[in-house]
Formats: sequence, structure tokens, C-alpha cells
Amino acid sequence: METPHIVIDAGIMANNINKMAKLVTNAGVKLRPHVKTHKMPSIAIKQLMAGASGITVAKLSEAELMARHGIGDIFIAYPIVSPGKIDRLLQLASQIQLIAGIDSLESARLLAEAAAKSGKIIQVRLEIDTGMRRTGVLYRNAVEMAEQISLLPSLRFNGIYTYRGAMYDGKPTLDIKTAGDDEGRLMVDLACRIRKRGIRIDEISVGSTPTARYAANVPGITEIRPGTYVFQDRMQSRYGVCGPEDWAACVRVTVISRPSADLAIIDGGSKTFATDIQPMSNPLQLEGYGHVLGWEDIRFERVSEEHGMLKLGPIAQTSSLQTGDILHIVPNHICSTINLHNQVVFRYENGEEHTAPVLARGLLE
Amino acid sequence: METPHIVIDAGIMANNINKMAKLVTNAGVKLRPHVKTHKMPSIAIKQLMAGASGITVAKLSEAELMARHGIGDIFIAYPIVSPGKIDRLLQLASQIQLIAGIDSLESARLLAEAAAKSGKIIQVRLEIDTGMRRTGVLYRNAVEMAEQISLLPSLRFNGIYTYRGAMYDGKPTLDIKTAGDDEGRLMVDLACRIRKRGIRIDEISVGSTPTARYAANVPGITEIRPGTYVFQDRMQSRYGVCGPEDWAACVRVTVISRPSADLAIIDGGSKTFATDIQPMSNPLQLEGYGHVLGWEDIRFERVSEEHGMLKLGPIAQTSSLQTGDILHIVPNHICSTINLHNQVVFRYENGEEHTAPVLARGLLE
Repeated sequence: METPHIVIDAGIMANNINKMAKLVTNAGVKLRPHVKTHKMPSIAIKQLMAGASGITVAKLSEAELMARHGIGDIFIAYPIVSPGKIDRLLQLASQIQLIAGIDSLESARLLAEAAAKSGKIIQVRLEIDTGMRRTGVLYRNAVEMAEQISLLPSLRFNGIYTYRGAMYDGKPTLDIKTAGDDEGRLMVDLACRIRKRGIRIDEISVGSTPTARYAANVPGITEIRPGTYVFQDRMQSRYGVCGPEDWAACVRVTVISRPSADLAIIDGGSKTFATDIQPMSNPLQLEGYGHVLGWEDIRFERVSEEHGMLKLGPIAQTSSLQTGDILHIVPNHICSTINLHNQVVFRYENGEEHTAPVLARGLLE
Repeated sequence: METPHIVIDAGIMANNINKMAKLVTNAGVKLRPHVKTHKMPSIAIKQLMAGASGITVAKLSEAELMARHGIGDIFIAYPIVSPGKIDRLLQLASQIQLIAGIDSLESARLLAEAAAKSGKIIQVRLEIDTGMRRTGVLYRNAVEMAEQISLLPSLRFNGIYTYRGAMYDGKPTLDIKTAGDDEGRLMVDLACRIRKRGIRIDEISVGSTPTARYAANVPGITEIRPGTYVFQDRMQSRYGVCGPEDWAACVRVTVISRPSADLAIIDGGSKTFATDIQPMSNPLQLEGYGHVLGWEDIRFERVSEEHGMLKLGPIAQTSSLQTGDILHIVPNHICSTINLHNQVVFRYENGEEHTAPVLARGLLE
């Protein structure tokens, strides 16, 4: 297969899946991986076979696709608010175990009314904003909202969830231990106060690959939903979550031009490497758009749509790096990078490579 | 169709296509639009019917797709260096009028050898680096390289091309008149010196939507290759190239949460809106990730993968904006945003809407 394309090392991926399965077993919590990282049913099935209790998705369309591929327990960690999508959600809930994320009384009511009309009971989880300021009921309003939602007919209140990632005190942080401890503690405290109102909470669910190992060990947490761990990436290394030996995915590119001693151009730019995690952004301070494997003094300095500009340091400048050479680059953020690709190449220990489609890519609706 | 999705106003698009067609007619140059903006053969055909002399693509795979849809004159403005791709390029060159971009003697030789073996003559254009520091022979080395390439058998030297966009003196600039004049002048001067060596140059081809109108009017320029003009976007408005009435494409989203008075969350983040043109980046200084049509005091402040965070100003805060409402947002950069979507919705004057696939999306190889 010609470049550029993503290469996934099947052995490293399997290790990453197993390590996280062990982590949750030791912590005594459930694992419901977020499949937004890979968007591939075949990988989701591997995660389930290693012990995950179900999967998490961001989009109804992703849930539908995963269900069509035989996955029977799905949490949509995203408010579904349009009438058309609520109909599809009810349809899906009659086929699989489905949990719907909600974060407001209005959207809970819409769902409850639609469920009542179709004679169904829908499991819901309330999303809590623990500091990220995106979806989620404000933390200070959460007890009251949990109570109101638990009173709605045709909904079964399954618990609470949050996503905060590596944040502390409203700001991104590299201190993932404090971030994870805090995330877990905030959620368990909240659950305690909700339970005092006589409301049953089965699940207290928290994010994320960086905070997983800490949040999972907060007593009371029942579930974690990391996504990126399956491949890991440069961002996660910076958080101290993994080392280069855990990078399961990289982008294979070709040097297409060597216009000067200090410059090599590759056939991948912003349509091949995601640009959401920008060079030198806080708190990661990553140099460039990716790490060029095996070339410590090459910096992936600039991108345009289909070109990547590599700045060569003294060692690389005196090397034989030339047009036509193949390079492997670990992106800053693998989730958004996979999202640019229609297919990936799996590489196996015996050196064989097979192409597979990223089936849920682009299912925005 | 559920949100999020891109909506293209067919009437505005037709106007944009016609305006550029008029501009090149007045300037007496040819138009070879870059289809990387839309990646749709149906739109490329509209551009050709309005008078474009051919199209430009960034990828061999895009050229193959466009050729399959009946487009017979394609310039690949990108060095093709791998043996497998060179074979495909030769194959394609036997089916349509094809021009291959080259920027080094090594890659020209590879192409010449392969062409000779298959008994074909390939048209080539030499890419010139006029200051962008990506592909392209360094300006100071261009005359010599043109001469060497013109001597290679089995290649027909068609001319020179550059892409510089809104750059001056190695830096991005908002002064597109100076940028365009300079881009054009640099290329015409160079062509003059190459011709003095007895080398025939048919085409002197320059970029870009921002610089088009100025570069096209530099005497001697024969062709321009703008892409974005077909839809225009927020970035182009900032360059002064278009006004809001020329924005043919926007992203339709739904408000999925209103967690607090100053915050609305939409169902589109970095997997729906491109992040290559970051807020407040130089020289554009655009506020946020897009312009929310009809809401002057809403700022599209943050994105995560599937969430967009809108900061509401005083007017929006006292409005009735609520969960379930539909908004239309013009992205900073439409080319990289379309690249995230498998399909778009065309909207016609009578209010009808039709979905169409972005056929060349994700054809990286």
C-alpha cells in the first residue's frame, strides 16, 4: 500500500488492551472503553474479549454501526436531543443494552416522553461537569438534577459520569495523579449526596487514558472509560502514561522532496496528521506535529494540507536521508489522526500487513 | 439529515465559480482550479463548464478518481516519487491529458526512465519555491534545474509553477496585493531567464485564492490555480477576498446543551471543524473556530473531538437560544473542514436540499 497510511502494530495494541484489562481488574472497576479512538468494531471486540463490560461511543451513528457488528452493550456518552435521533435511539435500545447520556432536564424529558410513547424504559446516566466546561450539568446543580431526572417515568437512572481528562482547578495539567484522584473523589462525593436523597446509583463512571489508573483506585468508582490507551500516542507519553514501546500506531510517509540540507518534505500534512494538539500548546509543550521514529534530531515543524515540513538537525543533515525514503511518525493525537483515514494497515509479528477499513469514520450524524 | 453536516448554497457557489471565470477572462490567463477544496467531481465539472481549462489535484489518487468521472485534463501539483505511483501515473497519462509536478532532478529522472521504458512522453512542470519552504526547487537553483530537466528524454517540459499563498518576504501577510504582485513577478522573471537558455515554457502558473486577482494581472503569467474561491471561507474574508455574501459553505450544527447562561455546546468539535487554522494565529487573528451566522456576539471558543463550546455574549445570553436549536457556522478553513466529511448537503434556491458524497475524501495514497 502506498503512503501515507496509518500502521498499527497488532502486538503492541494487544499489549495495551491487556494492560488496561489488568489495571481495572486490580482496581476492581469495570472498563467501558471509548471507541472514538479507533472507530473499528474489530478492535472493540478485542477489547470486549479482554474483559471490557461494554463500550462507549460519542455518536448515535457510531452506536448503530457497532451494534450492527454484534456489540451488545453500548453507552452513548453524549446528549441526544433531536427528535429524529431520539427515535433511532429508542429503536437501538430495543436491540441491545443501551445507556444514554443526558445532561439536562429538558433533554431527559424529551427522551422520557418518547420512551413512554413507545412503551420502553431507557437507561440513562447523568453527565457531570467536573471542570471541563463542556456538556454536563454544573457540579453544584447535579444533586437536584439527579433527583428530578430520577422521578421521570420511562427512564431508569443508571448513574453518573464525567469526562475531565488531565485537568485540575479548571486548567490542563501534567499532574495526572492529582487530576485523577480529584476527578474520582469529586464523583464519589457527589454520588454519596445523591444517594442520600434515596436515589439508586449503579455506576460512577470517569474518563480517560491519562487519569484512568488514579481515578480507578478512588474507592467508590465503578467504571472507567479510557479510549486512547489502545494505541497510545505522543500526548500520552508526555503525560507519563506510556513509553515509546507502547506506541501501537504511527503514520507511514514518504520523503517526496529534499529541497535543502535542513529540509525534508513528506507526503502528509494537516489532512493526514491531526492538528488539534498543536505544537507547544499547554500543558504538553510538544515539539512539532509528531515524533519521527528513529530520527531524534528531526523536528516535524510545519504542515500544509498535503505537505509535512521536517526540519533536519545536524545528524540528519549528514545522513543519507533522501527522496523516496520511508519514515514512520507517531502523531501528537492518534484519535483525531485516525479520524482522517479511511483505512489503516495492521502489522503482525511475522511482518505481514493487512488493510482494514475505519468503519465508523465520518459517521457524524 | 441530522446534524452535524456541511451545507453548500448552490447559488452562491455558482456565483463564486462565475466570478473567478470572469476574473481570468479579464486578465487573459487560464484557470486550473485546485479541487482539494471540494474533492467532488461534480463541482470540478461545473468549474470546467464555466471555462476552466483543466483541474489541479494534490494526489495521484484524486487524479485517478477525477479521470474516472470524465475529467480529461489534470495537473498533479505534487511530486510523485514512488515506483508504484509512477506506474499508475504513466497509466493515467495514457488515458487523459496529464501534467506531473516535479521539483528535483532525481524524481524527474525516475519519471523519465519509467516513461522511456513504457514508450511514453510525460508532460512535466517544475515547481519553484518562491518563499514557502515546502516542495519546489529553491528559486536560486531553478534555472539550472529547468535546463537539466529539459534535457531528459521522454519528458516534455511544460513550464513552471509555484504556490505561495499570502506570503511576503518569507512571512504570512494580509497584504495580498503585494504578495500576489510579488509572486507573479518572481515567476515571470524566472521564466525569462529560463527562456534565455533556449528552453520553451508554455505555462507560468501561480496559486491561490488570496493572490489570484493580483498574480493573474502580472504580464506573462498564463495560469492561476485557486481552490478555496469555490466556497470561500472566514480566512478568505479576512484577506479581503470575499464578503459574507460569498460564503457558500457552512456547517449546520445543533445546540446539544446549555449548561450555563454564557455557554452553549454544539454537536461539532475538531472532528467536524478543521483545526489547522487556529484561533488568533498569524496573520489572520481570527477569533475562535468559526463564525456563527446571525449571532455576532457568540464566540466559537473551544473544541474537543465531538463538542464545540460557544461563549455567549450579552445579547445571546438574553436570547432564547436553547438545546435543540440549529446554528450555521462558517469555518475558518473550508478545505480542511470538507475533508472531515463523507458527504455534504447542497441547498438550492427553492429550499430543496440534496446530499452528495465527497468522493475524493480520504484518498491519501
